[in-house]
Amino acid sequence: MTRKVKLAVIGTGRMGSIHARNIVRSLPEAELVAVCDIRLEVAQAVADELGIQRVVRDYHELLSDPSIEAVLVVTSTNTHGFIVQDFARAGKQIFCEKPLSQELKEIDETLRVVEQAGVKLQIGFNRRFDKTYQRVHEIVASGEIGRPCLLHIVNRDPDFPAMEFLRVSGGMFLDLGIHDLDMVRYQLGEVEEVYATGAVLINDELKEFGDIDTGIILLKFANGAMGTIDNSRKAVYGYDQRLEVFCSNGTAMAKNEEETAAVKGNRDGFTSAKPPYFFMQRYAPCYVEEIRQFIECVRDDKPTPTTGLDGRAAVVIGYAALKSLHENRPVKISEIG
Amino acid sequence: MTRKVKLAVIGTGRMGSIHARNIVRSLPEAELVAVCDIRLEVAQAVADELGIQRVVRDYHELLSDPSIEAVLVVTSTNTHGFIVQDFARAGKQIFCEKPLSQELKEIDETLRVVEQAGVKLQIGFNRRFDKTYQRVHEIVASGEIGRPCLLHIVNRDPDFPAMEFLRVSGGMFLDLGIHDLDMVRYQLGEVEEVYATGAVLINDELKEFGDIDTGIILLKFANGAMGTIDNSRKAVYGYDQRLEVFCSNGTAMAKNEEETAAVKGNRDGFTSAKPPYFFMQRYAPCYVEEIRQFIECVRDDKPTPTTGLDGRAAVVIGYAALKSLHENRPVKISEIG
Amino acid sequence: MTRKVKLAVIGTGRMGSIHARNIVRSLPEAELVAVCDIRLEVAQAVADELGIQRVVRDYHELLSDPSIEAVLVVTSTNTHGFIVQDFARAGKQIFCEKPLSQELKEIDETLRVVEQAGVKLQIGFNRRFDKTYQRVHEIVASGEIGRPCLLHIVNRDPDFPAMEFLRVSGGMFLDLGIHDLDMVRYQLGEVEEVYATGAVLINDELKEFGDIDTGIILLKFANGAMGTIDNSRKAVYGYDQRLEVFCSNGTAMAKNEEETAAVKGNRDGFTSAKPPYFFMQRYAPCYVEEIRQFIECVRDDKPTPTTGLDGRAAVVIGYAALKSLHENRPVKISEIG
Amino acid sequence: MTRKVKLAVIGTGRMGSIHARNIVRSLPEAELVAVCDIRLEVAQAVADELGIQRVVRDYHELLSDPSIEAVLVVTSTNTHGFIVQDFARAGKQIFCEKPLSQELKEIDETLRVVEQAGVKLQIGFNRRFDKTYQRVHEIVASGEIGRPCLLHIVNRDPDFPAMEFLRVSGGMFLDLGIHDLDMVRYQLGEVEEVYATGAVLINDELKEFGDIDTGIILLKFANGAMGTIDNSRKAVYGYDQRLEVFCSNGTAMAKNEEETAAVKGNRDGFTSAKPPYFFMQRYAPCYVEEIRQFIECVRDDKPTPTTGLDGRAAVVIGYAALKSLHENRPVKISEIG
Repeated sequence: MTRKVKLAVIGTGRMGSIHARNIVRSLPEAELVAVCDIRLEVAQAVADELGIQRVVRDYHELLSDPSIEAVLVVTSTNTHGFIVQDFARAGKQIFCEKPLSQELKEIDETLRVVEQAGVKLQIGFNRRFDKTYQRVHEIVASGEIGRPCLLHIVNRDPDFPAMEFLRVSGGMFLDLGIHDLDMVRYQLGEVEEVYATGAVLINDELKEFGDIDTGIILLKFANGAMGTIDNSRKAVYGYDQRLEVFCSNGTAMAKNEEETAAVKGNRDGFTSAKPPYFFMQRYAPCYVEEIRQFIECVRDDKPTPTTGLDGRAAVVIGYAALKSLHENRPVKISEIG
Repeated sequence: MTRKVKLAVIGTGRMGSIHARNIVRSLPEAELVAVCDIRLEVAQAVADELGIQRVVRDYHELLSDPSIEAVLVVTSTNTHGFIVQDFARAGKQIFCEKPLSQELKEIDETLRVVEQAGVKLQIGFNRRFDKTYQRVHEIVASGEIGRPCLLHIVNRDPDFPAMEFLRVSGGMFLDLGIHDLDMVRYQLGEVEEVYATGAVLINDELKEFGDIDTGIILLKFANGAMGTIDNSRKAVYGYDQRLEVFCSNGTAMAKNEEETAAVKGNRDGFTSAKPPYFFMQRYAPCYVEEIRQFIECVRDDKPTPTTGLDGRAAVVIGYAALKSLHENRPVKISEIG
Repeated sequence: MTRKVKLAVIGTGRMGSIHARNIVRSLPEAELVAVCDIRLEVAQAVADELGIQRVVRDYHELLSDPSIEAVLVVTSTNTHGFIVQDFARAGKQIFCEKPLSQELKEIDETLRVVEQAGVKLQIGFNRRFDKTYQRVHEIVASGEIGRPCLLHIVNRDPDFPAMEFLRVSGGMFLDLGIHDLDMVRYQLGEVEEVYATGAVLINDELKEFGDIDTGIILLKFANGAMGTIDNSRKAVYGYDQRLEVFCSNGTAMAKNEEETAAVKGNRDGFTSAKPPYFFMQRYAPCYVEEIRQFIECVRDDKPTPTTGLDGRAAVVIGYAALKSLHENRPVKISEIG
Repeated sequence: MTRKVKLAVIGTGRMGSIHARNIVRSLPEAELVAVCDIRLEVAQAVADELGIQRVVRDYHELLSDPSIEAVLVVTSTNTHGFIVQDFARAGKQIFCEKPLSQELKEIDETLRVVEQAGVKLQIGFNRRFDKTYQRVHEIVASGEIGRPCLLHIVNRDPDFPAMEFLRVSGGMFLDLGIHDLDMVRYQLGEVEEVYATGAVLINDELKEFGDIDTGIILLKFANGAMGTIDNSRKAVYGYDQRLEVFCSNGTAMAKNEEETAAVKGNRDGFTSAKPPYFFMQRYAPCYVEEIRQFIECVRDDKPTPTTGLDGRAAVVIGYAALKSLHENRPVKISEIG
């Protein structure tokens, strides 16, 4: 029998506690040996629920613990950089939620440290592990429908996050849109230029801090294809997650999933269900699968399915989109960093 | 905090091990204290995987264990009756997979023992816990689309089970179809008369033991509505699970779910995914939910959502369908038992 | 250039005037030389609209008109028999709306006269000319999805016809259902036995004259397949026209068409359009196509795509269904006529 | 009874002959009194088919014909301008296929002449008469789903037109895309700025004359909304015609229609039909409806549903898109003309 990979989860907020539960309940190939959160009681509650022995407030306590082989960094974004660097220097294998940092300089420094340490780094681009997007990728990558020509992504949240989060989110394209900026690379490869537009059309409060709630990014790819991403902070009919890759010999589409498969017919027509409410529901299996693959990479010493460079690339495209939004002109990716 | 309900799982084959995993991984409100299987090594493997302390071969060992409050009987059908009776007499709360027995007499005896013992009995009609069927039920039961008039169920397996199972399965209507015979009662209430037809159209081996692989049951309900169930042992495009309740002011339908939400368009048209392969995939959340509700009923001393009488009723309709099939005439439910 | 076939339309009510318009507007291969209706002013209006020269009240006037090669008999059902016989004896080629008669005896007499006269007779089973049903037929008949096992037809009108019509309609199975009784033969061939049930669930007025508004016919086919037809006089969400032929290697389905391809998404979910309102909208192209093919058969002396025997067969199944409904037992087709 | 409007069709090629047939067959409120084509035999064939008395080669012959009240100008694009001007000066009411001209200067001159003459001018933006787009418009315009935020149009032809046509087509955005440039105005009102990109990804022959076969236009609207149009010359799965208007309280979508409503299920999944092949099939009813409304406007002296200014506006957006494509920068509509 293969050995169990011993893990610690750093940060046990909403996303960290999901990872912790998934490891304990659905990933017998790993053992969760410690949880950590600066709010010790939050970590303790997760530990109690899941029967985890070691609970710490300060992640430094875990750096030199030889029983820990790998860590999941699920803290707030502004702490990702130095925590990842510390664990890298300590020789731990690392899974880190996206983005590595909102500062390109810090991302680069972190990637340098990770590379020098020779540890693995996987970025939490969970949507790459979704069976529907994978099926689209498979169809496109197989070449059976020819050469990619056009891409369109719809990514709309069902509602605004809290205002205090929005103020520090880095802006809609970098926060909500970061998944799309990775997805386009997953489906079509490198982006060369972007043109972005956006506006506040739903919630005027956002104007205070210069963010947008509605936006479009037009992308030109190195392979000649082109595409658009449309984002909104609020789709009242639910979390809208669609994708199309149109090719020279066909098209591949990801429809929305539905909360139920029930349909009601009456004098108004036929009404089917809304999509699963939000990312926790829609992408639940992906959160298990990405960690399952991370564990496998650690155990079998394989490269991770998403890398630090993937994490960097999405942020760079995001910066280019922001620059385009502010300067109202197409921006080459090479202009950034 | 509410107390945890202590459970044992009797029978750790395919279905039993699913229940065991669900309890340990997804139902923190319960504690799985023992597993039992006449193939001890099978029970031991499940116990090892899930960290269960007590493993027994003979369920009698558990009858007098005061730490066990409730049991899940997931053994082979022909043993359900006496095992349920023994646990009932021992005062345990009981969840039993469908059917209670293939013999009506044994069902009646079992229900009598359960009643005398004053314990709870829930039958594993998992589909009642499916969100799509529940939504259909909700629409119909609310009266918003008027009076039920017509029902149609499509229930087709993706492939034949093993021949050795088929020989003892009780026949397609009682085995594959038992879920439909409960579903029709869940959606429309009591059945008064059935007319059934069936044939071997796919696999001639079945003729040896007089079973069918394709069949239809036409039902007349006490409320005046009528409906049909169509069953097949083999739908090559996957597990086909559909339902419609047509009412005087509208209709409510359960479509198939899809394995992925990907669609490919090419010169042949647009191709979408097959349904989730089989019951383990399609109804996975129901297996958790039915046990969650069972635990809640035990803990809070509430009536179970499906009862022994529900279990009996479905079998009775199944017998009526078999009788109709053999005699080629409509059979009143009152003719049976 | 090929000669134009010269036609007369006998009966210019709703359906007759549609045929007249289709001939004049969409079928340049024919010439409509006369229209006839016992309500002369009705015929005159149609003639005025379409520029038809000859208008008569009494069809006998047309029997000996050598300029008329073929007639469309679109009068009320109870007159079909003798009118068809008269035109057959006069040597005219005949298209007749379904059914040839509600009396089997009259049908047989009519078919005998037609055969003796050696003229063509096409029955107006318009649905055979629908591209969706034809595509289903093509898939099934090709054998690519194996052997037919199960059939299900949903045929539900959007609303009741006038009460005075219902009183003489012959009953729901023979009136509304006659199309299904032909469709099952088109898709799966001959029927051997039926079992039918039905009730008044929506409109109690029907009880006065012993008709039903909701019903199911279960059919057993000569090829071993079996199927069901479900009929209702009132689907509030529109004219519901669906079909499935499930086979040993796949399935072929006819979905409903939609009035528009618009979809609205809001807090209630996603709402798509109702089906086209009724047969005039849903089957509009079929009414043209059936006459186009009739004209071609007349001009090129080919057998008609639907025959008098098809017309008889559907009525016979309908009688068997009625007999089954009244006697509550399966009825062999051979018991009728 | 209302008088019939007397019409002439100028240009009886593919589109002109469709209009001629529609008038004669489906629009009894008009009378087609003359057809004209510089290829006299083409006009004669249409006249023969439809029984039109007057056939001319030179449209000047019709200018002073008092029996003609209105004309349909369906000639090649480069002749629209002067023909419309001549008929305007002659006092005829005018329906003209889009675009009025590929030269903005000529459009302006033509609109000036039309205005001075005081005649009506309707531009053939047939898609505004499609019931699906009208339903989307109705939903959006009603305000029931809030404020428009995002628009996305998919408009992809099933295949390339002839190369000789492409060389003079004005480019993909002005030829294929002109309908979208009107549709966005129909749905969301005035456009303020566009950014466009495009490439040759399918057929290298186009590079010779600097056209593209794949492109995207990003639009910013005066109402604050934004949107994208994606165009391709070749969708192998058929004529792809979709639209979405996402609003602050919901979304309204136009799906593709389907050639048939048949679905095949087999081991590959479920395959539904391609869209109707091309514009002649997909938009057939619109070609009738736009002329029906034109006739009504002429007869009842009402403003036309699409105007010369609508025709101009779409061309101006198209020029802005071309300018953006060539200069790779956002272009304000006010920069053009």
